[in-house]
Amino acid sequence: MNIAILGYGVVGSGVDHIITTRGQNKHHVTKVWSRPNPKKQIPHLVSTIKEIINDESIDCVVETLNGIEPAHEHILACLNAGKHVISANKAVIAKYYEEFQAAAKKNDVQFKFEASVGGGIPWLKELGRAKRIDTITSCSGILNGTSNYILSTMTKEQADFEAVLKDAQALGFAEANPSADIDGFDVLNKIMITANVGFNGRVQAEDFLVCSMRPVTASDIQYFKNKGYTLKYLGQVEAENQQYEGSVMINACLEDSLEANTNQNYNCATLQGDTIGTLTFYGQGAGQFPTAHAIVQDLLDLESDRPQVNQELQDFTFHAKTKNNFWIRTNQQIPEKFIAGQDNQYSQLMPMNLIEFKENLLPLLKKEDLVVRMPL
Amino acid sequence: MNIAILGYGVVGSGVDHIITTRGQNKHHVTKVWSRPNPKKQIPHLVSTIKEIINDESIDCVVETLNGIEPAHEHILACLNAGKHVISANKAVIAKYYEEFQAAAKKNDVQFKFEASVGGGIPWLKELGRAKRIDTITSCSGILNGTSNYILSTMTKEQADFEAVLKDAQALGFAEANPSADIDGFDVLNKIMITANVGFNGRVQAEDFLVCSMRPVTASDIQYFKNKGYTLKYLGQVEAENQQYEGSVMINACLEDSLEANTNQNYNCATLQGDTIGTLTFYGQGAGQFPTAHAIVQDLLDLESDRPQVNQELQDFTFHAKTKNNFWIRTNQQIPEKFIAGQDNQYSQLMPMNLIEFKENLLPLLKKEDLVVRMPL
Repeated sequence: MNIAILGYGVVGSGVDHIITTRGQNKHHVTKVWSRPNPKKQIPHLVSTIKEIINDESIDCVVETLNGIEPAHEHILACLNAGKHVISANKAVIAKYYEEFQAAAKKNDVQFKFEASVGGGIPWLKELGRAKRIDTITSCSGILNGTSNYILSTMTKEQADFEAVLKDAQALGFAEANPSADIDGFDVLNKIMITANVGFNGRVQAEDFLVCSMRPVTASDIQYFKNKGYTLKYLGQVEAENQQYEGSVMINACLEDSLEANTNQNYNCATLQGDTIGTLTFYGQGAGQFPTAHAIVQDLLDLESDRPQVNQELQDFTFHAKTKNNFWIRTNQQIPEKFIAGQDNQYSQLMPMNLIEFKENLLPLLKKEDLVVRMPL
Repeated sequence: MNIAILGYGVVGSGVDHIITTRGQNKHHVTKVWSRPNPKKQIPHLVSTIKEIINDESIDCVVETLNGIEPAHEHILACLNAGKHVISANKAVIAKYYEEFQAAAKKNDVQFKFEASVGGGIPWLKELGRAKRIDTITSCSGILNGTSNYILSTMTKEQADFEAVLKDAQALGFAEANPSADIDGFDVLNKIMITANVGFNGRVQAEDFLVCSMRPVTASDIQYFKNKGYTLKYLGQVEAENQQYEGSVMINACLEDSLEANTNQNYNCATLQGDTIGTLTFYGQGAGQFPTAHAIVQDLLDLESDRPQVNQELQDFTFHAKTKNNFWIRTNQQIPEKFIAGQDNQYSQLMPMNLIEFKENLLPLLKKEDLVVRMPL
């Protein structure tokens, strides 16, 4: 099988390395398209994407570009040219999931994207398998290595956010602009893809409660630790009867939970199914070889699995039915009717669902204010 | 696809329930063979196994008997009659792995056994997938729900072994004769099957160091807790260049490790691969529906995966190359040259490999003596 790679950064070159060193002569990277990069020599480099799209000898295209365009355009062109596409690009998949699936179906090829959520963890594979038997009712997890590295380092070293972020940037664990990782948009993309796969549900970004992790301080961490909880940045989505709700926010996790003990840049992802119960997967959520490994697994599945047609998404409606136990730290005036209790700087809110929180509380809070969800 | 079930206990009837309620008319349980059971009405019951073996309309046989015979004989007869076989019976698989694989290959059918290790956790599936790309160097985990339930209850309630065992038996979490679960033979079977799948390695039961968990007391647990460790009963096997070593024993796990936080009857299993790094799977290691779920996953894989021929096992030689940090609690006289340090009733041994331990220490210890492996 001949393969082209779009993008030759950390992940793209990792895919090339794994295929070249372990392809057992069954797989060959024959062309690479990349933005011009004078810093490194790129093998098999072509100057235009057309040289890949029009090359009938290429069976599969691996897309490791970041961002929406030109990734969106190139993925569609490759699918429409009758090539399988494997993508690690969660932003473009979350946005164009249905368009890519439809194009794959029309052209009788596969669109695969294991590496887009949970890096090296076979999360989407096993979520899809569990769904064959079970109704999946909930998915949640630590799905961003950068924010988890920062938060677990703050917890371990009792350090504040800005100092740890700076270290993480120096070490290459956080980008110069870390917003997608720490303000929740990366996790939101991943939890939306998770909902697409786990529930066959069409979900809307604006329905989710997304709170940045920036407000967390070392003393917040200590305060909740004294209560037996570890603060973690979780994505979460629940569904029942085509209704759903979800969030990306700081959660207070029981200190003996797997989430509380998922440290450094590790990820963990958990599903709940009606016969399988709780199933959790833990591993490297990012990094060159774990991510490349997940892409090569998709590649091998093209041959080991019979072709599958993904079910079309159903309309899901947002329905905030669960009462949450929110705690906040703020200097703003909060109407008393929303306050269940107060302790030092922290207020426990009356139990409320996501809509009640978004409508009544969120407009009152400033960006430095902390929101934490505790178990009920 | 028509299916026969051998054994109609907790797991067998669970498989019937899942297939009947969710088979979407693609799968049908048409015959059941079981030991006579006057306590319950068994649907589709046949009086002799021949009625299944000779029935050409049956495509797949699910074996949920316990023990070696007649399971061994029946599995072979079904494979030789050209039927796929799915088994949950770790004892018979660990013993006859190669014979079953050879019979499946000869008859061009599949022999599948996901449920035999880790219950509902897709451990063997993902171990096999990881191996497609990586060299697997190590596998370990909490692979027995009964012993983990006992040990985690002892830890939580500061209770002693006998009292917790009695409660577990009353609750149905432990059998009247709990030996296989708490003396390590069940975990040994599972870790041997793991080695077969993960390394393609032919391993021998007698090479493993197997220590019962019976000697652990509440005060042992407390002693190691004070040092920052949680005692867990782990199976473990490592391999490199067709050499291997392994054990089933109490390990002192760092209190923030996933193993230390795997409680009740949950299992967790971890692999190490050279590109994927650490990958851990956590879920229900036993129980009616999780185990039945794993069996039905095998059934669905018969249709969704292209037929695969498992690689033949290679001869692996036992090679105790790793130095271990063993701690013991004993009243026996231990030669001073083996002792690195002493603290209360506990002796830390000089670093030694498995062979040194088995040859020099094991013969000196009595059954009430505790052996714990600490991280180096």
